[in-house]
Amino acid sequence: MSDTTMKALVFAGKGQPMLQDRPKPTIIESTDAIVRMVKTTICGSDLHILKGHVSTCDTGRILGHEGVAVVQSVGDGVTRFKPGDNVIVSSVTSCSSCDHCRKEMPSLCVDGGWTLGNTIDGTQAEFVRIPHADGSLHLMVEGATAEEQVMISDALPTAFECGVLSGKVAPGCSVAIIGCGPVGLSAMVTAQLYSPSQVIMVSRNSNRIALAKSMGATHGIVSGEGVDVVAAVKELTNGKGADTVIEAVGVPATFELCQELVAPGGTIANMGVHGCKVDLHLEILWDKNITITTRLVDTTTVPMLIKLLGSGQIKIGDLVTHRYNFAEIEEAYTTFGAAAEHKAMKVVLNF
Amino acid sequence: MSDTTMKALVFAGKGQPMLQDRPKPTIIESTDAIVRMVKTTICGSDLHILKGHVSTCDTGRILGHEGVAVVQSVGDGVTRFKPGDNVIVSSVTSCSSCDHCRKEMPSLCVDGGWTLGNTIDGTQAEFVRIPHADGSLHLMVEGATAEEQVMISDALPTAFECGVLSGKVAPGCSVAIIGCGPVGLSAMVTAQLYSPSQVIMVSRNSNRIALAKSMGATHGIVSGEGVDVVAAVKELTNGKGADTVIEAVGVPATFELCQELVAPGGTIANMGVHGCKVDLHLEILWDKNITITTRLVDTTTVPMLIKLLGSGQIKIGDLVTHRYNFAEIEEAYTTFGAAAEHKAMKVVLNF
Amino acid sequence: MSDTTMKALVFAGKGQPMLQDRPKPTIIESTDAIVRMVKTTICGSDLHILKGHVSTCDTGRILGHEGVAVVQSVGDGVTRFKPGDNVIVSSVTSCSSCDHCRKEMPSLCVDGGWTLGNTIDGTQAEFVRIPHADGSLHLMVEGATAEEQVMISDALPTAFECGVLSGKVAPGCSVAIIGCGPVGLSAMVTAQLYSPSQVIMVSRNSNRIALAKSMGATHGIVSGEGVDVVAAVKELTNGKGADTVIEAVGVPATFELCQELVAPGGTIANMGVHGCKVDLHLEILWDKNITITTRLVDTTTVPMLIKLLGSGQIKIGDLVTHRYNFAEIEEAYTTFGAAAEHKAMKVVLNF
Amino acid sequence: MSDTTMKALVFAGKGQPMLQDRPKPTIIESTDAIVRMVKTTICGSDLHILKGHVSTCDTGRILGHEGVAVVQSVGDGVTRFKPGDNVIVSSVTSCSSCDHCRKEMPSLCVDGGWTLGNTIDGTQAEFVRIPHADGSLHLMVEGATAEEQVMISDALPTAFECGVLSGKVAPGCSVAIIGCGPVGLSAMVTAQLYSPSQVIMVSRNSNRIALAKSMGATHGIVSGEGVDVVAAVKELTNGKGADTVIEAVGVPATFELCQELVAPGGTIANMGVHGCKVDLHLEILWDKNITITTRLVDTTTVPMLIKLLGSGQIKIGDLVTHRYNFAEIEEAYTTFGAAAEHKAMKVVLNF
Repeated sequence: MSDTTMKALVFAGKGQPMLQDRPKPTIIESTDAIVRMVKTTICGSDLHILKGHVSTCDTGRILGHEGVAVVQSVGDGVTRFKPGDNVIVSSVTSCSSCDHCRKEMPSLCVDGGWTLGNTIDGTQAEFVRIPHADGSLHLMVEGATAEEQVMISDALPTAFECGVLSGKVAPGCSVAIIGCGPVGLSAMVTAQLYSPSQVIMVSRNSNRIALAKSMGATHGIVSGEGVDVVAAVKELTNGKGADTVIEAVGVPATFELCQELVAPGGTIANMGVHGCKVDLHLEILWDKNITITTRLVDTTTVPMLIKLLGSGQIKIGDLVTHRYNFAEIEEAYTTFGAAAEHKAMKVVLNF
Repeated sequence: MSDTTMKALVFAGKGQPMLQDRPKPTIIESTDAIVRMVKTTICGSDLHILKGHVSTCDTGRILGHEGVAVVQSVGDGVTRFKPGDNVIVSSVTSCSSCDHCRKEMPSLCVDGGWTLGNTIDGTQAEFVRIPHADGSLHLMVEGATAEEQVMISDALPTAFECGVLSGKVAPGCSVAIIGCGPVGLSAMVTAQLYSPSQVIMVSRNSNRIALAKSMGATHGIVSGEGVDVVAAVKELTNGKGADTVIEAVGVPATFELCQELVAPGGTIANMGVHGCKVDLHLEILWDKNITITTRLVDTTTVPMLIKLLGSGQIKIGDLVTHRYNFAEIEEAYTTFGAAAEHKAMKVVLNF
Repeated sequence: MSDTTMKALVFAGKGQPMLQDRPKPTIIESTDAIVRMVKTTICGSDLHILKGHVSTCDTGRILGHEGVAVVQSVGDGVTRFKPGDNVIVSSVTSCSSCDHCRKEMPSLCVDGGWTLGNTIDGTQAEFVRIPHADGSLHLMVEGATAEEQVMISDALPTAFECGVLSGKVAPGCSVAIIGCGPVGLSAMVTAQLYSPSQVIMVSRNSNRIALAKSMGATHGIVSGEGVDVVAAVKELTNGKGADTVIEAVGVPATFELCQELVAPGGTIANMGVHGCKVDLHLEILWDKNITITTRLVDTTTVPMLIKLLGSGQIKIGDLVTHRYNFAEIEEAYTTFGAAAEHKAMKVVLNF
Repeated sequence: MSDTTMKALVFAGKGQPMLQDRPKPTIIESTDAIVRMVKTTICGSDLHILKGHVSTCDTGRILGHEGVAVVQSVGDGVTRFKPGDNVIVSSVTSCSSCDHCRKEMPSLCVDGGWTLGNTIDGTQAEFVRIPHADGSLHLMVEGATAEEQVMISDALPTAFECGVLSGKVAPGCSVAIIGCGPVGLSAMVTAQLYSPSQVIMVSRNSNRIALAKSMGATHGIVSGEGVDVVAAVKELTNGKGADTVIEAVGVPATFELCQELVAPGGTIANMGVHGCKVDLHLEILWDKNITITTRLVDTTTVPMLIKLLGSGQIKIGDLVTHRYNFAEIEEAYTTFGAAAEHKAMKVVLNF
């Protein structure tokens, strides 16, 4: 490691994640912090960027919006953190004082939101500049591993806020989750904070269904050729369908399925990142008292999630299936890009 | 009027509303009441039935689910009403005790919901059997005309519950309402109970926009050739779009418009009765914190609406544009079926 | 058992619970059901009545408002139950259609509420007339014992609605419950449906604290001489106090304690039946963002609680410590009246 | 005005508001702003301080937490304001990023809350240092006078948040407000944003009742010798009492009255600053489904209130009854301290 340069994973063009040397970041605004990364990970969104689907992210950008780190230096306006603090980097940065932040919607922050690894350089690098550090970092907690706390950056709060809270999971209700990736499984785990009667996981991947069941799902349905998922869910729910349906894939077919699964009076909470429009069957749903929600994570529940992770009330460690040194990040991208083939869920990079 | 027969408007086949002689109804269940109609009206849903779009409604059915009446007789199990009471007939009948009714969702009542003029004989007749009378009738109030109280059967609570409440209208927010029919205008009037800053009405019909403004809309946009409704709403809302968008038409084009008009963090409340699927642009909306709601009226707010109508805090009388004797109901259907041509909003039939 | 008379426990005067012969009840209103009791129990409220503290309850009244039963006969207006059904009797009867019932507040029902064993004859008898049966009975569930389902009549929904819901228990929060009687323990059990980080039980009775811990409390404090409960709770909660404090005793000293324990921004949910006024320290609390709630159970959550009891997600069986034949009910009153001495929690009577 | 000193109203000891020369404030933290006051006012809390009732406020403190101003200079960390901006000073300063601020409770901010004119120097001075300026100032709006905007500092948001929102005012409900001072009247005005059926004002002062009626109260009751306020409110509310009761005085007798006036299922929202404990009649209220709230203003609704003030939907100008030059502030204190005698409501000081 040189004094002025560092290693970083750069979006070098469509399909090209490339490890490069880059200048170390420095403090620009008084509210910035510079952090030294300890662990980071790769998100489905990073793959979307590499496919060229995220128009806000230009080539040359350092990717990544997740990880745990040590604070290296802070600007004058930072009051909550000091060098040496062990911190979780939030995927959403928050100025804390714009109208959206004040209404607990930092995802829409006028000077923040999902910027890391998107519109500014991200966390797949040895050092990162974190804008509005007071609103964008969180102290790590004892009682949970560093790997588990990497899930606090994005997967856990996204699942909890966009899936469980938006989906109004409540004691005794039935929940169906379409998609068993890291965020779908995190929704399954955090849904249980509200004691639903049933959490039914749906995936084409039988390995993932098995993992879901081992982590607490009450039912799992391996979808595919000849499987009538709708009939199966209706049978489990006395013909009603699921009170909460969480979309965790992001393609038209799964959103279609959600509409068939939702019970009258129920909610479809979309978590998937969609690349094209979908059909909405208002000719069927117009009188069914259905709510559909879309949302980016706001990370407002992060302090609570950290607490429950520290106390062992949330158990999420099994999500990490692969570990690499940061120098091997290009290989990690290859593995994560073919997740089913490698039975991969979350891939952690160690610095 | 004979002792045993009465006049009734019957769905005699596609496009055929026909005035016929029918047997007077009698009490079947101990919770029934028989009411003598005083005023009724025609709803857009009646036109949908006549077009053959409502599969639950068979030919031969007496239409209508709105009106004010006098109680003629009640079964043993009816405790809240007695012969002679002046009542409003609710468009939704409610058993009051099934799981849905207990959760304030009578629209999904297992032995009720929208049944009148749909799955059982309705209110466009001299006499009507009202099942579960205790949960399906309301005493009329002093301080409002009988015509205004006809709007309590359906238009006002539909607009308030499915539009204003589902749309989360709040003090200081901006509201856009697409469609200026009776329910759209009722949404405009009842939205003001929550003091939004702006209520922007959108319609192709300049007469209706003028009426909307005279009844309290802050802005009106006549849509059509060469009018950029999206740009107009964005300009009125500092580029943000409307916090609440209420769909009061029921076709794909208007639902499309709603998606373009809604502000990040906002809500699209669908009130329109849709006959086909629509496009949902999740590729744009997935991260915009949008809520979409669909709903049939539950009539749970009717006691409050009656109170505010009686005190003059809701003014809705201008919605009635045409009046007929019940004997002329076939002509009334013709007028209401070509509402724009006749500058018709609500058409009241007097018995 | 004669054809026309039955055994019943009667409030014969202050301090006199007396087993007497009484005429069997018959259907009076078309909405009534007659049920044959299978199990009943004694509530703290019954002791209050015997002390003469409940002015609405006259001498001569058959006591009791809890139990499971078999439906014997129903009136014409009853649609949800038939002879032979195994049912739970709700402590609150509900007409389902008055303004209060429609707003999910049957405790304030104009023709119901807590009437059984109070203003009309109750469940400590071989047969009982249940008014408004459709809104006042619930089908028993498989998967839970009859004894557990007796707790659905009153203890469980009271604890859940008046303690847990009114107290806004939420994931990660801290809960302190003052009092370890059946309702306090039921609040502890049902609080866990919302995954609080801490449930701290406070009682003078070390046996009850031990029971509470065995049933899931995270902490227990035996109060009394020389024990600084406030300091202990503050230490457990980083000096903040508890987010939710549930009062489950009903005397001034415990309500005083609640005010000392509650964290800024927190809630005191009162469940205790109070016989005299208490001090409220507004000079301290006026700017602390505190909410205080009082409430009688509305039983609106009973269908959900039955479901979770049947699925084993609520475990409450350990609450029953003593069992008697109904003929021994006077002895059961003696035992329950000196609960601490007999290490008694719930006392079940079998018919 | 010298270069380094300024005029300021100082708490010089019990009962001694004294105009003194003080050093001009300077920026200490990078998040500070220095503002030049244009208008300020006196609050009931300032009188409490002078009586020695506010233990957090030491002698020597510059008083005042309200007013409009011009930004003079800002620290490096301030991003939302620049010199020359016309601003409203919020009575509550907010760091925006502590746990309480993130949960929309800046009143409990760990480095803020009500500090101005309490624990740090306040706004009754020519210049003021505003900590955490980004979270503690608001841009003034066109369409409302500067005097009206002074009410945004404290009176309007306190009334709206602690009275109207905590009191759950809703369309069609009945509201009783005890006390017709500036905050009580502000509650009356902002309650109307939710269209209650009745707003009943109670005060011993007939002038204030007349003012309340002229500003929109539906009913007024002059309390005192021989007036049965409880009977009067019960008569207006069909014997039920008021759904929302707002306490805007702060003495035991008025809190007692609130308990007699509240309807079953209703809420008592306390806004009064209490100096001693009160009686809470749990022996009567335990089963009445009552909620009692206490709260300091959080100012989270200020952007909305500014908007509605600017659009003329809130009219509050009549609250200002007296105007002085700042040099006359000692006289203004005398007037405001004997408000009834001088028919004074809000007293504005101009710089």
